[in-house]
Amino acid sequence: MAVNLKKPKNEDLHTISGIHLGTAIAEIKNKGQRDLLIISLPEGSVVAGVFTKNQFCAAPVIVAQENIKQTNKTRALIVNTGSANAGTGEIGIKDARDICKSLAFKLKIKPHEVLPFSTGVIMEPLPVKKIQKKISEAIEDLNESNWQLAAEAIMTTDTIPKAISRQVTIQGQIINITGISKGSGMIHPNMATMLAFIGMNANISSKMLNQLIQEVTKESFNCISVDGDTSTNDSFIMMSTNQADHSQINLDNKDYYILKSVMLDVAINLAQAIVRDGEGATKFITIKICEALNYTEAKKIAMTIACSLLVKTAFFASDANLGRILSAIGNGEVEGLDIKKVDIYLNDLLFAEAGALAASYNADSAQLEMKKSEIELRVMFGRGDGSVTIWTSDLSYDYVKINAEYRT
Amino acid sequence: MAVNLKKPKNEDLHTISGIHLGTAIAEIKNKGQRDLLIISLPEGSVVAGVFTKNQFCAAPVIVAQENIKQTNKTRALIVNTGSANAGTGEIGIKDARDICKSLAFKLKIKPHEVLPFSTGVIMEPLPVKKIQKKISEAIEDLNESNWQLAAEAIMTTDTIPKAISRQVTIQGQIINITGISKGSGMIHPNMATMLAFIGMNANISSKMLNQLIQEVTKESFNCISVDGDTSTNDSFIMMSTNQADHSQINLDNKDYYILKSVMLDVAINLAQAIVRDGEGATKFITIKICEALNYTEAKKIAMTIACSLLVKTAFFASDANLGRILSAIGNGEVEGLDIKKVDIYLNDLLFAEAGALAASYNADSAQLEMKKSEIELRVMFGRGDGSVTIWTSDLSYDYVKINAEYRT
Repeated sequence: MAVNLKKPKNEDLHTISGIHLGTAIAEIKNKGQRDLLIISLPEGSVVAGVFTKNQFCAAPVIVAQENIKQTNKTRALIVNTGSANAGTGEIGIKDARDICKSLAFKLKIKPHEVLPFSTGVIMEPLPVKKIQKKISEAIEDLNESNWQLAAEAIMTTDTIPKAISRQVTIQGQIINITGISKGSGMIHPNMATMLAFIGMNANISSKMLNQLIQEVTKESFNCISVDGDTSTNDSFIMMSTNQADHSQINLDNKDYYILKSVMLDVAINLAQAIVRDGEGATKFITIKICEALNYTEAKKIAMTIACSLLVKTAFFASDANLGRILSAIGNGEVEGLDIKKVDIYLNDLLFAEAGALAASYNADSAQLEMKKSEIELRVMFGRGDGSVTIWTSDLSYDYVKINAEYRT
Repeated sequence: MAVNLKKPKNEDLHTISGIHLGTAIAEIKNKGQRDLLIISLPEGSVVAGVFTKNQFCAAPVIVAQENIKQTNKTRALIVNTGSANAGTGEIGIKDARDICKSLAFKLKIKPHEVLPFSTGVIMEPLPVKKIQKKISEAIEDLNESNWQLAAEAIMTTDTIPKAISRQVTIQGQIINITGISKGSGMIHPNMATMLAFIGMNANISSKMLNQLIQEVTKESFNCISVDGDTSTNDSFIMMSTNQADHSQINLDNKDYYILKSVMLDVAINLAQAIVRDGEGATKFITIKICEALNYTEAKKIAMTIACSLLVKTAFFASDANLGRILSAIGNGEVEGLDIKKVDIYLNDLLFAEAGALAASYNADSAQLEMKKSEIELRVMFGRGDGSVTIWTSDLSYDYVKINAEYRT
C-alpha cells in the first residue's frame, strides 16, 4: 500500500556505460524472489559511501568501510537481502570477507576491491554457502540494462522497487545518473541511509565525489523517517565510471553545482520513494520547519514531530487532532522557545497562530486537508532563518502487523 | 486490556484525616462518566509538585505552578478530564484562573490556594461553564473515603482506576500514604508525570517535601514510557496534612529515608499501573541497564530500547527477533561503546554475549520467554557502575486503533 509510488519502467532508466548489474535467486528470502545482486564497475571508477552510525553496525558495513578506505579502486559490489549479517560478531566479519573473496576470485580482482552489503533479519548467521553457490549465475547475468531487476533484488519488506534516472549536460557531455534504493521499515537514517546505490559517468575526482555524497545525503536520505529506528545496515554508495569526456570536476565550481543539483534530485526521489513505501504507510507527509534559530534546531523539531506516534496515528485516522503537533513541538527541547511566535499551517490552512488555535480555524476545512494522501505541515518559529524539509509517513495498523509478523 | 492490573478496592485505601475528595459528572467526557474531582486539604498542609517540561505546557500547569510558588498554603485541587486546556493561549490561562476563583469562592479560600489540573483533548477550549455548574455538587460530595471514586474521575483512555495505599510508622506514629494516578497514552514523563496525587499525614517541612518529590519522581514516574510522547499536562502532586504527632522531618535523616522508601513504593506502583494500563498494552516490560558508565548513559539506552517501535512490536508478537534490541542499543549514541562487552538477558536467558548471539542461545527457549506477559530485559554494559530500571509496554494494533479513534 505505497503512497503514490509507481513501479519504475526499465526503459526510463538510463544505462551507465561500464556499469553492469546481475541478479540471482539464492533462496535466502522465501518465495523464489531475487535476493542477490552484483554490480561491476569499469577500471578507473571512483566510489564514495556513507554508512549507518548505529554502533551495532553490521559486519558488511564494517568490511565495506575497510575496503573503501584501503583502495580507491572498487570494482564490484555484492548485495544480499533476507539476512542482515548484523549482531553476528567475528564470524559475521569473516563471512562478509569470504563473500568478497569468492566474488573477487571469479572476477579476477582483489578481495578489497569488492564492497559487501546485506539487509534482512538481524542476529542470524549469513547463509554464506547459499550466496557462494549463486555468484556465478549472477555474474553470467551481468548487463548494463539490469537496473530495474537490481532494484527488485534488494527489496525486503518493500512493496515496490525503487529506481530513478536523470540526465544532465556538463561541458557539452551528457551525464547519465541512475540510482536504486530499498527500505520500508527501520527507517531513520543517521548520516547515511538504507541501501541506495547511484551510478553515473561524470568525470569527478574521488575527493569531490566524497564531498558530493556528504552534501547530498544531508538533504535527502538524512531527511526521512518512517519509524524512528536507525538500521544497523544503512549504506549509500555513489559510483562514477569517470568515462564522460569533460575536464575533471575537482573543485566546487559551476559544474559541481550543476551535477549536485541533479544528483540531489535523484537522491531525494529515492529517499521519498522509501517513505512512500514505508511499512503500512497511507499518507506521505512533508514537514517544513522555517524561521528556526538554525538548521540543527529545525531538524530536531522536524524529527520530533515525525517520530511522534500520536501525530502519526492522527494522520492515519485523518483526524485533525492538531494539538498533538503542538505537543510534539513542545517536546523538542528547544531552548528559549517563545510559543507565542509559533504559527503552523496544514497545507495552506493556518491552524495554529501565536501558539494557540488560529482565530480563522475551521474544523471542517482541517478535516478535508487531513484526508489528503499528500500533506504538508509548515511550522513557522519566528526566531531565525534556520529551515529544513523532511519527509515521513503515518502509523497504521499495518505497520504493527508487518513488524509483528516480519519473521513468520 | 491492562496487563496484570486489578481495580483497587476502596477498603484497601487508607483515608488521610483532613483530606476530603468529591467527584461529579460535568459531561465533558461522554457516556455519563465522572470527570470532575475536587480535593480539599486542611489548614497547615504542605504541598509539592513537579510538572511537565513540554514547552507547550497546558494553561492549568502554568497556573498551578504560579499558585504553588505564591503560597505554601494550598487548600484545594480541582481536576477535570475530557479537555486538556493546552494550546489554548491566553484564554486558556484565564479559564484556568476562573475555575480556581469559582472553587475558592465556594470554599471561602483564596484563588491562589487552589491548584487546577486538566487532561484530555489538546487545543480545544476548556468548557468552563460545564465545570462551574458542577462545582457545588462535587463540594457536597467531599468525603475522606472517596479515594477510589477520585481515581475513577481522573481517567481518560485508562481502562482501570489506579490507586495504592501504604502505612509506615515514624517515631511510633502511623503515617498513612494514599495515592492515585491516571495515564495510558502520551506517556513519557520528563521530570514529571501524568496526573498523580499522593496524600499523607506525615509531619514534614515544605523543603523536605520538595526534596522527597524530586527524588521519588526520578525513580518512579520518570522511569516509564508507553509511547515516547511527553504530555503537555503531566503533573505529580504530593500533599501532607502534617497532622501526625511526630517531630517534623526537616533533614534527610533516618525518618526521611523510612518515609522515602514507602513513598517510593507507592509512586512506583502508581507509575507501573500507568504502564500496565498503557494504551493497547499486552505485555509489561522491565528494562534494566547495568554496568553503564553512569546513570545518564543507562537511562538514555533504556529509553532508546523502550521507545523503539521495532522492539515494541516484536514483544507484541512474542517474536524473539532479538536483533532489534541490539539495533536499538546501537542507536543510543553511547560514546566509545565496546559492543564486545555487551551481554543481554531475556528474563534469565542469556541471548547476546559479547555483542553477538550467545553460544548457548536456543530459539525455542527464547520463544517461551517472549510469550510471558511480564518480561525483564537485562543489559550488561561492562564499562562502569551506572544502572537504571525502567518500565514500558509493547505496541499492538490496539494502540493504533485507540489513538486513531481517540476523538471519535
